[in-house]
Amino acid sequence: MTRIRHTTVGIIGGGPAGLLLARLLHRSGIDCVVLESRDRAYVEQRQRAGILEQGTVDVLRACGAGERMDREGLVHDGIELRYDRRAHRLDFPALTGGRRVMVYAQTEVVKDLIALQLDDGAPLLFGAQALAVEGADTDRPLVRYTHQGRQQTLTCDYVVGCDGFHGVARQAVPEHARRTYERSYPYSWLGVLADVPPSCDELVYAHSERGFALFSMRTPTVSRLYLQVPNGTDPADWPDDRIWDELDARAAIDAPWKLERGPLTAKAVLPMRSSVTEPMRYGRVLLAGDAAHIVPPTGAKGLNLAVADVTVLARALDRLHRTGSTESLDAYSDTCLRRVWRAEHFSYFMTTTLHTGPDQSPFDTRLQLSQLDRISTSPHAAAELAENYTGLPLK
Amino acid sequence: MTRIRHTTVGIIGGGPAGLLLARLLHRSGIDCVVLESRDRAYVEQRQRAGILEQGTVDVLRACGAGERMDREGLVHDGIELRYDRRAHRLDFPALTGGRRVMVYAQTEVVKDLIALQLDDGAPLLFGAQALAVEGADTDRPLVRYTHQGRQQTLTCDYVVGCDGFHGVARQAVPEHARRTYERSYPYSWLGVLADVPPSCDELVYAHSERGFALFSMRTPTVSRLYLQVPNGTDPADWPDDRIWDELDARAAIDAPWKLERGPLTAKAVLPMRSSVTEPMRYGRVLLAGDAAHIVPPTGAKGLNLAVADVTVLARALDRLHRTGSTESLDAYSDTCLRRVWRAEHFSYFMTTTLHTGPDQSPFDTRLQLSQLDRISTSPHAAAELAENYTGLPLK
Repeated sequence: MTRIRHTTVGIIGGGPAGLLLARLLHRSGIDCVVLESRDRAYVEQRQRAGILEQGTVDVLRACGAGERMDREGLVHDGIELRYDRRAHRLDFPALTGGRRVMVYAQTEVVKDLIALQLDDGAPLLFGAQALAVEGADTDRPLVRYTHQGRQQTLTCDYVVGCDGFHGVARQAVPEHARRTYERSYPYSWLGVLADVPPSCDELVYAHSERGFALFSMRTPTVSRLYLQVPNGTDPADWPDDRIWDELDARAAIDAPWKLERGPLTAKAVLPMRSSVTEPMRYGRVLLAGDAAHIVPPTGAKGLNLAVADVTVLARALDRLHRTGSTESLDAYSDTCLRRVWRAEHFSYFMTTTLHTGPDQSPFDTRLQLSQLDRISTSPHAAAELAENYTGLPLK
Repeated sequence: MTRIRHTTVGIIGGGPAGLLLARLLHRSGIDCVVLESRDRAYVEQRQRAGILEQGTVDVLRACGAGERMDREGLVHDGIELRYDRRAHRLDFPALTGGRRVMVYAQTEVVKDLIALQLDDGAPLLFGAQALAVEGADTDRPLVRYTHQGRQQTLTCDYVVGCDGFHGVARQAVPEHARRTYERSYPYSWLGVLADVPPSCDELVYAHSERGFALFSMRTPTVSRLYLQVPNGTDPADWPDDRIWDELDARAAIDAPWKLERGPLTAKAVLPMRSSVTEPMRYGRVLLAGDAAHIVPPTGAKGLNLAVADVTVLARALDRLHRTGSTESLDAYSDTCLRRVWRAEHFSYFMTTTLHTGPDQSPFDTRLQLSQLDRISTSPHAAAELAENYTGLPLK
């Protein structure tokens, strides 16, 4: 027998978007339920992003989820670009009037939000597999899901899909009512975790004719490193030594620098693609985060866009709750999409400026080097990158 | 019988690059000769660019060729971008600390320089067809040419090739010693002259899903208009009415605006391509302007790059003449190429941001619109465009 339950806002997906939305709604006194198909351990160890924009940091702090982040996260005041055997640092606070970023892994954000929600928050059901969203264009949409072996129904005033590109929420919007814009990039990233302190204090984005490399970190003792690889690459073809040698070669500059090596603890190939679904609302179903848009990882925008979406949405639902006005909610899709397209463009810009495409001509490479040289010498070009990287203010 | 003549600097090509170089050298007291294969009438009516950067204006003034330009040229303080049925103006002096551009056709620059040179300048031979440059790697390079039906030889201390991409100077650099970087764009421009006052005070760059359009002018009574068309377009397929209708459609905005029509007096299809030959010097042969590099017309950089090249070169030759030092001359290629690649990138940026490629996806179009929106709202993005458009200062 199907059990029926009601909530004001049904949230599908217990990643950072769904969890943060639940946190924000709970603080506004708005009833919600989060359905997450996986178990807690899985969600808490899923490797994803690690760079938080200034605005993301501000939101996490404001909702009480910033304590461990502020203790353990690494505040970064810039990044380094490497190209043509040179290194150039971008000073974010100087270029943006004080904005910076925080290195703090998505896994940790998720752990903090889960702990808060279980301790003092709305219901969060793990192993709750959403099957379908129905009635998007009615006053009472519902989510059918299975939990603990039983078919269940969650009726809602609003359903929010934070369940990713392949989730059921996106499917609840009829095809005639949505349009998806997509782009695939002709290369992937081989991402590794290494038990070795990072060899640089800040992230290093390295342009090289051998392909792009990114030197990042999770903590002061764990390095996070990426290599551009061809699509279809099998990580098994990349023994540890080959990875270190290639990282070394791509980061080479005409100055002393040593890449410290250590044991690799994870190795995975990540595809690079962009996708935007418009609009981000259909009736009483709202999409947020990856359910509405995907960015390639080069600009570190995926998690930050998800946080921006749910921040805008929580404010709109709070306004509706307090005043009865749907004005902000009606503007939700347009408000978010402007930021989304900006982030898509920035991610595209970072990706195509730094990677070497399989059909790239020597002319194209020289254009990349000219652009990198411009960023290194023009305050406006540098500030344009820094503003996008640290994130545009939430309106 | 071959007549042999000697000069310090033999200049091949009597376009703006060659003529301006001759003017600058003459003022430094350096002996030179200009060989131009065409006749004067042809050179003076060849339709080319029409936008002079701040630095180009300054150089023309400084060498005494600015009088008519300052009287008849149109000083422009900005351009207008149109996209998504909106118009946005960029205010150049405000964005760049006072830099502006001048609308003054290349034909007029050439007329002014020819008049000056014939009146008080170095020898300028029309109908002098350069056949070959020899001895580039010796102390006494020479140009073989025909003039008035006779084979002639010009021996030189230096030969400067201002004779365009297909000129003989570029061929004088052995293939092993040069590298050419190229890119073709998958569209062309249909350019027309119209005997009608321009419908806008400043240039209008219009993005449209129908293709790019540019609304420019030559004088207060002559419009210069361009439409993006497929490669291989025959101007005969574009009767006047079709051109005006298409210009109208591509410029459409949600605000009153009327495109005044008038008789078309010229109609031609211009290819869009980029090319850079490195280095710009081999032995005692130096390349300048189109002989070394081609840009698509979108950024209005072709004439301005040529002026920058010969300004750098004239300074280097003046230094050699005065002090015996070849240091500036030895740096000529590197000095110019940095600006050349910046201009290639800017031209690429303007071209790909504003045109609709034949294989362009809806995603790509949205990226263009996001970038145009960013230029319209971010001071840094706007300034970056304005600085490149008005031209980087000559070092």
